Amino acid sequence: MRVVTLITDFGLQDGHVGAMKGVIRSLAPQAELVDISHEIRAQDIRHAGFVLKTAYSYWPADTIHVIVVDPGVGTERRAVAVETGAGTFVAPDNGVLSDVLAQEEARRVVALTNAAYWHHPVSASFHGRDIFGPAAAHLANGVPLQELGESVEPASLITWALPSPHRHLDGHMTIHVLHVDRFGNCTTDLPAEWLQAAPQWRIEVPGAAEDAGSATIHGIARTFGDVPEGAPLALVDSTDYLAIAVRNGNAAQAMGLRIGAPIEIWPIANE
Amino acid sequence: MRVVTLITDFGLQDGHVGAMKGVIRSLAPQAELVDISHEIRAQDIRHAGFVLKTAYSYWPADTIHVIVVDPGVGTERRAVAVETGAGTFVAPDNGVLSDVLAQEEARRVVALTNAAYWHHPVSASFHGRDIFGPAAAHLANGVPLQELGESVEPASLITWALPSPHRHLDGHMTIHVLHVDRFGNCTTDLPAEWLQAAPQWRIEVPGAAEDAGSATIHGIARTFGDVPEGAPLALVDSTDYLAIAVRNGNAAQAMGLRIGAPIEIWPIANE
Amino acid sequence: MRVVTLITDFGLQDGHVGAMKGVIRSLAPQAELVDISHEIRAQDIRHAGFVLKTAYSYWPADTIHVIVVDPGVGTERRAVAVETGAGTFVAPDNGVLSDVLAQEEARRVVALTNAAYWHHPVSASFHGRDIFGPAAAHLANGVPLQELGESVEPASLITWALPSPHRHLDGHMTIHVLHVDRFGNCTTDLPAEWLQAAPQWRIEVPGAAEDAGSATIHGIARTFGDVPEGAPLALVDSTDYLAIAVRNGNAAQAMGLRIGAPIEIWPIANE
Repeated sequence: MRVVTLITDFGLQDGHVGAMKGVIRSLAPQAELVDISHEIRAQDIRHAGFVLKTAYSYWPADTIHVIVVDPGVGTERRAVAVETGAGTFVAPDNGVLSDVLAQEEARRVVALTNAAYWHHPVSASFHGRDIFGPAAAHLANGVPLQELGESVEPASLITWALPSPHRHLDGHMTIHVLHVDRFGNCTTDLPAEWLQAAPQWRIEVPGAAEDAGSATIHGIARTFGDVPEGAPLALVDSTDYLAIAVRNGNAAQAMGLRIGAPIEIWPIANE
Repeated sequence: MRVVTLITDFGLQDGHVGAMKGVIRSLAPQAELVDISHEIRAQDIRHAGFVLKTAYSYWPADTIHVIVVDPGVGTERRAVAVETGAGTFVAPDNGVLSDVLAQEEARRVVALTNAAYWHHPVSASFHGRDIFGPAAAHLANGVPLQELGESVEPASLITWALPSPHRHLDGHMTIHVLHVDRFGNCTTDLPAEWLQAAPQWRIEVPGAAEDAGSATIHGIARTFGDVPEGAPLALVDSTDYLAIAVRNGNAAQAMGLRIGAPIEIWPIANE
Repeated sequence: MRVVTLITDFGLQDGHVGAMKGVIRSLAPQAELVDISHEIRAQDIRHAGFVLKTAYSYWPADTIHVIVVDPGVGTERRAVAVETGAGTFVAPDNGVLSDVLAQEEARRVVALTNAAYWHHPVSASFHGRDIFGPAAAHLANGVPLQELGESVEPASLITWALPSPHRHLDGHMTIHVLHVDRFGNCTTDLPAEWLQAAPQWRIEVPGAAEDAGSATIHGIARTFGDVPEGAPLALVDSTDYLAIAVRNGNAAQAMGLRIGAPIEIWPIANE
């Protein structure tokens, strides 16, 4: 039984999720549908990309991941299916697969142009139900990827520049907030392994808003328990990136941090 | 494996959904439970009816749809199961099936009066767990519908007057907002096929609130991409009704539109 | 096919739920994953305990319930699996199982210390993915509980004092709000069976906030339909505890009730 996971910005107050699941389930009675999130911020493809990045690698390699955050629906943007060694991804070609494509080799890519595998009539605004969902269902049924449409050069897929730390000549780095989770923990773009370049670090979080405090954090904590209640800390989070947090508090609120906010990090010598 | 879909206003912060799923799963180990929505606005049966309407027809005909939005729980309102050619519906008899009954013939209807198929003790306030859920589970197990209780005349089911466009003598129509989705797109009660009566149309959206702009929309767009960013448009949406939207914006907010708001639409001759 | 239910405070806007489900599904392809709630208030273990209490008993006894509301993650708090006659519970040892342990005998308890059953590398902040989820998956696969780690004395599990009514010498009781659901209905800590001690009762709800009205409720209603629209009532709710509600209204808002708020209840003689 193959799993089809769903990431959308449809929300849970409309019938869109129910319609898309129904189409998949009608075509592929044996597929197992699993919700990852339907609460992606409306049309926020970077949010969807981050959620996908943090979840896909834990699934079996034969899983089909459907991502429908699709501000360009009805325009000329391509709908694609991408086969990798770590899952098959069905999504609009709008950059939402950037993080996946940075980590996995795209073995085969097709544009979903074969109308025989669509749900008809095709709406101009709901390709989750009419194109992406059916493609996932047919893949779950064992239809070969190349049947779904024209072959596409992997290098032609749209990707965005992944945010990355900026190294300064004096050795310190400017890093950026990539994602703020519901607890207010702020994941940055600094991969954990970069922290090995110095024995210890000092992190300067500017107070981004007037009523938000700045913070200087000495050292990387191993866990929340390493600091007192309410204190800020920096730690490697579950995505293996450096994160800024507050123990039993909300770092984003306390320090006015938003996605993209810059943070300075300085190497310090062993004492 | 028969599918049981769930539409409720229970929200996801309480144990109600978990209890109802547990009862169904305990009675029918082979049933497949699928969430359509638990985020119907509290006690809003019209909201539930719209979500059901936009989702049910995409499911296999042997699917059992359970809808528990039940402001009359504990009163004399009937609990019913309705078998149609497009699914079986288990719900309170409070009008929530109006849209389904306008489109599908009710082949058989029973009131869920047979206590042998209830979960005991029956709470006075939670029939989702004690009556509707168990009924769905027994149906999934193959119990014949007529076992669940007394036969009911389909015509006696409560339905509400479906909103519909008002045709004026001068040929224009007053149509109404039926549903506002999470993107602020406003589905109206004008079926797409009515648009064939004229070669083109002009839509007048009154500014419903003081700070909301009115808008005149010329022509029906095929897709969001047909208008510039931020511009209002009218298009046939995925439910096959005319909708008012704003490209990459929120039409409901921009124009102060709410459910029931009137919109004028004028036929215009080919030029 | 064993069911694994999930109760977390991860929310639905991040990839955490997707990662945890992926780990479980990868290890236990036959397990059936069911969401109970991912909308527990952040780090609110009492909220999680109440949701679990109202849901677990409706599931088959071989169900595995995973509860990850874990403010102490990364500290010395234990991770445990608890086998009872009404389900197996996998959770941090932080009191979240208090209500379950008050009702069910813990037959066997282990700390999840056997690293062979963890997902590696183990993050310091996401034991749902790395410890609790894998433990549930292995249990679903039939791994004996005692394999997962060291045996733990059931009496050593952390539990909190369950809130309970206070009986006064004059025969009246002070009871407390245990939970406020999405409709604003307030479940109290008064078990329904205690109401048998008198033929009838009078309930005094103090106006907790300045703009909130107090209310005197005479008698226990059987159902919402027993009082007029907008009137307050007291009734035994679906959890078998006394609840304060307003017919088609929001009792918590109307009377300023929050979790822990005291309410007085007086026995009255038959007239």
